[in-house]
Amino acid sequence: MSNSFGKIFRITTFGESHGKAVGVVIDGCPAGIAFDLAFIQKQMNRRRPGQSKITTQRQEEDRIEVLSGIFEGYTQGTPIALLVWNEDQRSKDYSHIADKYRPSHADYTWQLKYGTRDYRGGGRSSARETLARVAAGAVAKLFLNHIGIRITAYVSQVGALKLQQHYSQLDLSEAAIESNMVRCPDPAMAAQMIDLIDHTRKNRDTIGGVVSCVISGVPVGLGEPVFDKLHAVLGKAMLSINAVKGFEYGSGFEGVAMLGSQHNDIFYTDEKGRVRTRTNYSGGIQGGISNGEDIYFRVAFKPVATIMQDQPSINQSGEQVVISGKGRHDPCVVPRAVPIVEAMAALVLADFILRNQVVKLNHIVSAYPVTTLL
Amino acid sequence: MSNSFGKIFRITTFGESHGKAVGVVIDGCPAGIAFDLAFIQKQMNRRRPGQSKITTQRQEEDRIEVLSGIFEGYTQGTPIALLVWNEDQRSKDYSHIADKYRPSHADYTWQLKYGTRDYRGGGRSSARETLARVAAGAVAKLFLNHIGIRITAYVSQVGALKLQQHYSQLDLSEAAIESNMVRCPDPAMAAQMIDLIDHTRKNRDTIGGVVSCVISGVPVGLGEPVFDKLHAVLGKAMLSINAVKGFEYGSGFEGVAMLGSQHNDIFYTDEKGRVRTRTNYSGGIQGGISNGEDIYFRVAFKPVATIMQDQPSINQSGEQVVISGKGRHDPCVVPRAVPIVEAMAALVLADFILRNQVVKLNHIVSAYPVTTLL
Amino acid sequence: MSNSFGKIFRITTFGESHGKAVGVVIDGCPAGIAFDLAFIQKQMNRRRPGQSKITTQRQEEDRIEVLSGIFEGYTQGTPIALLVWNEDQRSKDYSHIADKYRPSHADYTWQLKYGTRDYRGGGRSSARETLARVAAGAVAKLFLNHIGIRITAYVSQVGALKLQQHYSQLDLSEAAIESNMVRCPDPAMAAQMIDLIDHTRKNRDTIGGVVSCVISGVPVGLGEPVFDKLHAVLGKAMLSINAVKGFEYGSGFEGVAMLGSQHNDIFYTDEKGRVRTRTNYSGGIQGGISNGEDIYFRVAFKPVATIMQDQPSINQSGEQVVISGKGRHDPCVVPRAVPIVEAMAALVLADFILRNQVVKLNHIVSAYPVTTLL
Amino acid sequence: MSNSFGKIFRITTFGESHGKAVGVVIDGCPAGIAFDLAFIQKQMNRRRPGQSKITTQRQEEDRIEVLSGIFEGYTQGTPIALLVWNEDQRSKDYSHIADKYRPSHADYTWQLKYGTRDYRGGGRSSARETLARVAAGAVAKLFLNHIGIRITAYVSQVGALKLQQHYSQLDLSEAAIESNMVRCPDPAMAAQMIDLIDHTRKNRDTIGGVVSCVISGVPVGLGEPVFDKLHAVLGKAMLSINAVKGFEYGSGFEGVAMLGSQHNDIFYTDEKGRVRTRTNYSGGIQGGISNGEDIYFRVAFKPVATIMQDQPSINQSGEQVVISGKGRHDPCVVPRAVPIVEAMAALVLADFILRNQVVKLNHIVSAYPVTTLL
Repeated sequence: MSNSFGKIFRITTFGESHGKAVGVVIDGCPAGIAFDLAFIQKQMNRRRPGQSKITTQRQEEDRIEVLSGIFEGYTQGTPIALLVWNEDQRSKDYSHIADKYRPSHADYTWQLKYGTRDYRGGGRSSARETLARVAAGAVAKLFLNHIGIRITAYVSQVGALKLQQHYSQLDLSEAAIESNMVRCPDPAMAAQMIDLIDHTRKNRDTIGGVVSCVISGVPVGLGEPVFDKLHAVLGKAMLSINAVKGFEYGSGFEGVAMLGSQHNDIFYTDEKGRVRTRTNYSGGIQGGISNGEDIYFRVAFKPVATIMQDQPSINQSGEQVVISGKGRHDPCVVPRAVPIVEAMAALVLADFILRNQVVKLNHIVSAYPVTTLL
Repeated sequence: MSNSFGKIFRITTFGESHGKAVGVVIDGCPAGIAFDLAFIQKQMNRRRPGQSKITTQRQEEDRIEVLSGIFEGYTQGTPIALLVWNEDQRSKDYSHIADKYRPSHADYTWQLKYGTRDYRGGGRSSARETLARVAAGAVAKLFLNHIGIRITAYVSQVGALKLQQHYSQLDLSEAAIESNMVRCPDPAMAAQMIDLIDHTRKNRDTIGGVVSCVISGVPVGLGEPVFDKLHAVLGKAMLSINAVKGFEYGSGFEGVAMLGSQHNDIFYTDEKGRVRTRTNYSGGIQGGISNGEDIYFRVAFKPVATIMQDQPSINQSGEQVVISGKGRHDPCVVPRAVPIVEAMAALVLADFILRNQVVKLNHIVSAYPVTTLL
Repeated sequence: MSNSFGKIFRITTFGESHGKAVGVVIDGCPAGIAFDLAFIQKQMNRRRPGQSKITTQRQEEDRIEVLSGIFEGYTQGTPIALLVWNEDQRSKDYSHIADKYRPSHADYTWQLKYGTRDYRGGGRSSARETLARVAAGAVAKLFLNHIGIRITAYVSQVGALKLQQHYSQLDLSEAAIESNMVRCPDPAMAAQMIDLIDHTRKNRDTIGGVVSCVISGVPVGLGEPVFDKLHAVLGKAMLSINAVKGFEYGSGFEGVAMLGSQHNDIFYTDEKGRVRTRTNYSGGIQGGISNGEDIYFRVAFKPVATIMQDQPSINQSGEQVVISGKGRHDPCVVPRAVPIVEAMAALVLADFILRNQVVKLNHIVSAYPVTTLL
Repeated sequence: MSNSFGKIFRITTFGESHGKAVGVVIDGCPAGIAFDLAFIQKQMNRRRPGQSKITTQRQEEDRIEVLSGIFEGYTQGTPIALLVWNEDQRSKDYSHIADKYRPSHADYTWQLKYGTRDYRGGGRSSARETLARVAAGAVAKLFLNHIGIRITAYVSQVGALKLQQHYSQLDLSEAAIESNMVRCPDPAMAAQMIDLIDHTRKNRDTIGGVVSCVISGVPVGLGEPVFDKLHAVLGKAMLSINAVKGFEYGSGFEGVAMLGSQHNDIFYTDEKGRVRTRTNYSGGIQGGISNGEDIYFRVAFKPVATIMQDQPSINQSGEQVVISGKGRHDPCVVPRAVPIVEAMAALVLADFILRNQVVKLNHIVSAYPVTTLL
C-alpha cells in the first residue's frame, strides 16, 4: 500500500480515522538532534481540528506520545515512533453511509480496490492520516534548523480571492501568518477570506484554495538531476496530500506565456562573492538541483467533498440513494493544510540533505572536491 | 543519482548527449508481450530532432538497437536493454561554454553538486536523455495495449495561445494530432501556434507551452491511497521531464474557485450497470485511485533556456562573461514533448497495473474477493 | 538505519530494549485475512523470556496490542501496527556498563557509528527487537496458511551435540517440537541438549547452536532469478537475526565434496502427473526459484556474548576495565530462536508470494500463460 | 525480476548468455574516480572462460566497452554503462535441450515461472551474467582503493581437499594467489586441487568447492544494525551467485560448538591507541557493524550441474527423456568464482561506504560528533 515516504529520512504512517491511534515511524533521522517535544506539539496544534470557527468543530487534542528513538533528550539514529490516540470518535455519525458511496470521496475506489473499507470517517483515507506527516515533518524541521533551512507556507487563495503580491512583498513572519485563523499574511485579505469561508459554511457548502510555500536558506546541490529532481519530489509530496489538484513552482503555469529572453535568470556575482541570479523564475531549482535562491511553489486544494447538503449517490448494490450531510467537517481545507504543506516540504528537504551527503564524499576520494555544501 | 523510475515496471536510463550512446534497461516487463520494434521506432521518430521546421535542425535518426530481453519476438520477463548510438555530435559547438554557466540551465548547479560536468550539449542533463524514456514508454504501451488503456497527449497551449475546448470536444485521433507539426488537434489553432513558434524562432527567442494528456480505458483500482496516489506519481513523472514547471489534473488550479456542491462528481449506474460519475472534476482519480473515468492532466513547459542571443553570465571563476547563442535548438519544446509525456504516463500506468496485481490476490486468499480489475 | 524488511509485504520495526515499547508496522498485507490474535500471541509466547529454566529469567508477558489495520476482525490492506509495552525493565542492571564496551556486543561499533547508544539492555541492538519480527511473522503465517505453506523450525544442534537424522526422519509435528523446552524433535537428544545448556548456565557460561528449518507446500515459481534468489533473501533474513554466523540450504557446505553426478536431482513425473525430483540436494530451490520440493536450511548461532563472569575490556576512553556479568540472560539462544527463524522465513515467503503475483499477470496479457501457481 | 543490487552504489545487469550482449549500468558511483579501464579488463580476464585447462574451453575475450558515464578519464556521478558483446556462441549446442529440463538447472523453475525461457546456454540464468558483476565490482574496487579497503578471495577447498591454515598464515598477495590456475595460495594444495579437478573432468564429472574471502582496511562503522547488517548483505550478495549453497563469516558453523567465554573477542587498546580485539571470532563485524578488524567469510559452491554424461530427465510434456552431456563447461566453478566473490564483496562495501556518509553528517548537526570514519 506504500505507506512510506522518503529514501533515507523515511517515514511510515499507520492508523485509521476511527481506529485506536494514528502514528508514524521515522527511520533515518540522524543521531544527536535535540528532541524538542514542545515544538512538535506546536506544529500538531496548527493542524488539529477545532482550532477556530472556520475549521471542523471536531475536538481532538492530538497529543503526541513518543514510543521510541529518543534517549536522554536526543535522537539516537534509531527509529522514532510517534503516535496520537484517537479520542473524539463519533463512529455512529458514519453508520448511515456504511454501504453508500459519498461523491468525490475514496469510498467507491477503495471498495473496489480492496473489497472492503473502514467506512468510519473515511478510515485510512481520512485526512486524519496527515497528523502523522505533521509530526514527522516537525522532526525533520528540527533537523533542518541546524542547517539554516526555513520553510514557510501560507494561504494565498480562497475561492476566487487571490493574494496578488509576490511572496517577497509579504510579511512571512510566524507572527504575521499565525495572527489570523486563515493563515494569510495580508490582514485585509485574511479578513475577506475568513468571511468567505464563514459564508460558505453557513450555506452548508465548501470551497477550495491555494497554499503557497517558500523555502529559504537552501544550500546549492539538493536534488537528483534525472528522475528525482527536487521539484519533482516536492510535487509528488504535495500531490499526495488529500484534496490537492495541482502543483507549480517558480514561474509555473504563467511561465509558459513568457519568452526565453524574459524567463532566463541571469547569473551574477554579488558583493560577497556569492553566485546569485537577478530574477528567480527558476524557483530556486535548475536542472532539478537547488541553486541557493529561494524555492517557492503553489499547491491547489479542491473544495472539501463533504457538504452539509443532501446529494444523490449510489450504494454498494448500485442502487440510487441520498447522502445527507452529517458530522463535523471543514468548510475549507487550506488553513489547516498550511502545516501539512510545510511538513511534507520538510520531509523532502531532510531526505535530500541526507541523500546529498553521498556526493560530498567527493571531498575525500575524488579528483573533483566539492566545497559548496553545508 | 537516481536514474531509475518505477517500482515493478522499472527503468534505468544512461548516457550523455555527446557520449557514445543513450539507452535504457527495462526491468520488470512481463514475459510474452509481442515486441513490435516498428511501433517503438515510430514513437522515437515523434520525438527525434529535425522532424520539422519548428524543431531543432540537429539531425539524428535515433534508431533503436535491442541488446537483450527479447527471444523469438517476445519479451521474456528478463531485462530489456535498448540504446541509440549518438551520431550528429558537434561537440565543438560547445567548447565556447566549457567553463561558463548558461542562464537557466543545469550548468551551475551540476558543477557545484558534482564538482564536474560534461559540458558538451548539457551532457547528462540534456533532454536527449528523454529518448530513453520514449523507448521504454513505447514498451510500456505495448503492454498497456493488451489491457485496453489508451494514452493521448497533445499541445493545448503555446505562449498565450490556449486551446479553449474541453478535451472531449476535440478529435484526439492519431490522425488529427499528427496531422500538423505542432501536434495540436485543432487545425486552426495549430496553424496559429506554428506561426507563433516560427515567429519566435526568427526573433532568435523561445517560448513555453502546455501539453495536455488524456488516459482512457483505465480499470478501477490503480494507484496506492496514501503516498503513491496515482496522480502524485503521474505528477512526479511529468515534473521530472526537462523544462516542466507545473502539473494539474482534473479541475486543477481552476477547481479551487469552485464550491463543493459544484465540484462533487455525482455517481450513477448507467444502462449497462456500470458505475459512472455525471461530471469528472476528479479527473478519473478519487482518493489517489482510478475510478474508471478518463484521467486527464496538463503539464506546463517553460520557454527553452537556450536562445540565439547574447546573454550576460559568469564563468566558473565568477567573472562576468557573455554567452552567445550557438548550436541547433528548439524554439519551443512542446511539439517534441508530446511523445515524452505519453511515455512517462505509460510507464506510470504499467507500473501501477503490476503493483495492483498484489491486491488481486484477494481473489484467492481473502474474505473480500476483488472482482473489478482486468 | 534500514529498519524495514521486505519489498511488498514490508515490515518496519521500532523500539529499544528499555524504551517504552517495541513494535512493528506491517505494510502490504493483503486485505481479508482473518486476524487471529490468539495465534499471534502464541507465537510471541514461544519467543518470550522466562518460559523455562534454560532461558533468561527476565519476566515479560509480551502481550500484543493492535493499533491499526484491523476492522471487524479482518485485515484491510492498510498498515497493521502492533506493539508490546516494555515491563520488566531493570535499567539499573546496566548502569555499570554505561561507558564500557562489552566484548562481542554491539556497544563499541554502535558508539563509533552513531556517537551515542542507549546502553540499557543493548537498546536498539538488543535481541528484544526480534519480538517485533515474531509478531509480524505471525501475521505472515496467517496469510501463508491460506496457501498451504507450512514452516517448521527446530533445534538441531547445541554445542557439539548434533542431531544426525535427516529432517524427513524426524517427527516435525508441533506436538513433538514443543514437547520439550529446547525444541528439538528427538526426545533423547532434547534431554541431552537441555542438560548441556543447564550445565553451561551453572558454569556461568553460554553456548551456541543450530536451528534447522523446513518449508513445505511451497508453490513452484517463488524467488527472482538474479539478485533476489529465494535462498539469497532467506539467507539475508536469517543472517539479520542477532547472533547468527552462518546459513546453508540444501546440501550446503557438505555439498562441496560431492560430484555433480551425485548431487544432481533427477526429475521424474510421479503417479499424479506432478513433476518431482528423486533427491533434493537443491533444497527445493533451483536457479533461485522454488521447484515445489521442500525447502530446508540451517542457521548457525554463536554462544551468547553476555556471560556471568568477569571479563577484561575497555571503556569509552580506551582505558582497561573489568566487565562483571550481571542481569538475566540466556545461556543458549537457540530454543527461543526457533520462532524467530520461522517468523523471518514466513516474512520472506509472504513477500515472494506477493512479488510473484506480477508474473501471474501473464494469464491475461501474455503469449505464455502461466498456470502453475496458487 | 530484480536485476538490481545495492541501495546507493546500485547496479542493474542485463543480457542473456546467447543474446547480443551482457552488460551493467552502475548508478551512484561518486564523481572524480579515475577510470582505469585496464584494471577493469584485468578483473574480467580473471573470470573469463578458456583461461586454463581446468575451466571451460569456451573462448570469449570478454572485452569491456564503455557506453556512458566517463568524461576525460573520470567518473562523473552519472550512470556508467558497460557491456561485453557475446562472441563465441554455439547456440546449436543447445537445440537438443530446447524442450528438456536439465537436472539441477533453472530450466524447469524458469519455464514454470515465466511460461518461457531462452534455452540457449541457460539464457539469463547462465553464470555468464556474472561478467557484468565483475565489471561493476571492478569499478567499486577503484573507489575502495581510495579508502584503503582491500578485498582478497582465494580457493580454500575443492571437493574434500580443504586448506587447513587460517587466512593469516597464508600469503594472500596477488602474486601468490594468481600463481596457479586454481587460485589457491598454498602451492602444494593448489597442485592437488588442480589434479583433482583435472581428474574429475576426465571422468566427465564435476566437483564443488569453497571460496574464502578476507577484507582488510575497513573503517569502523559500516553496516546497518537491524536488517541490513553488514554480514547479512554480504551473505545475500554471495548467495546470489550461481551455484552457491552456503555462507558463513567469522567463527561460522564451527563457532556453535564454542563457549561464550572462548568466543568473546576481548577489547584492548594497542600501542598506537587504536581499539583492537585479541581474537576475531566476530569476523570483523559486531552487531552488524564493522569494528575495524579483518572481515572474513567462506562461500560454498556446489558441483556444476552440467556433466558430460547421459542423465535421465523429463521434457516439457513430462515425458521421460535422456539428457546427454554436450558443450564446453567448467568441471569446477571455484577458480573462476574467485573474482566474482571479490566483485560482489566490493559492491557491498562501496554501497555501505556511501550509506554511511549519512551518519557522518553528525559532524555538523549533531550533539554527538562522529570522528572515526574515513
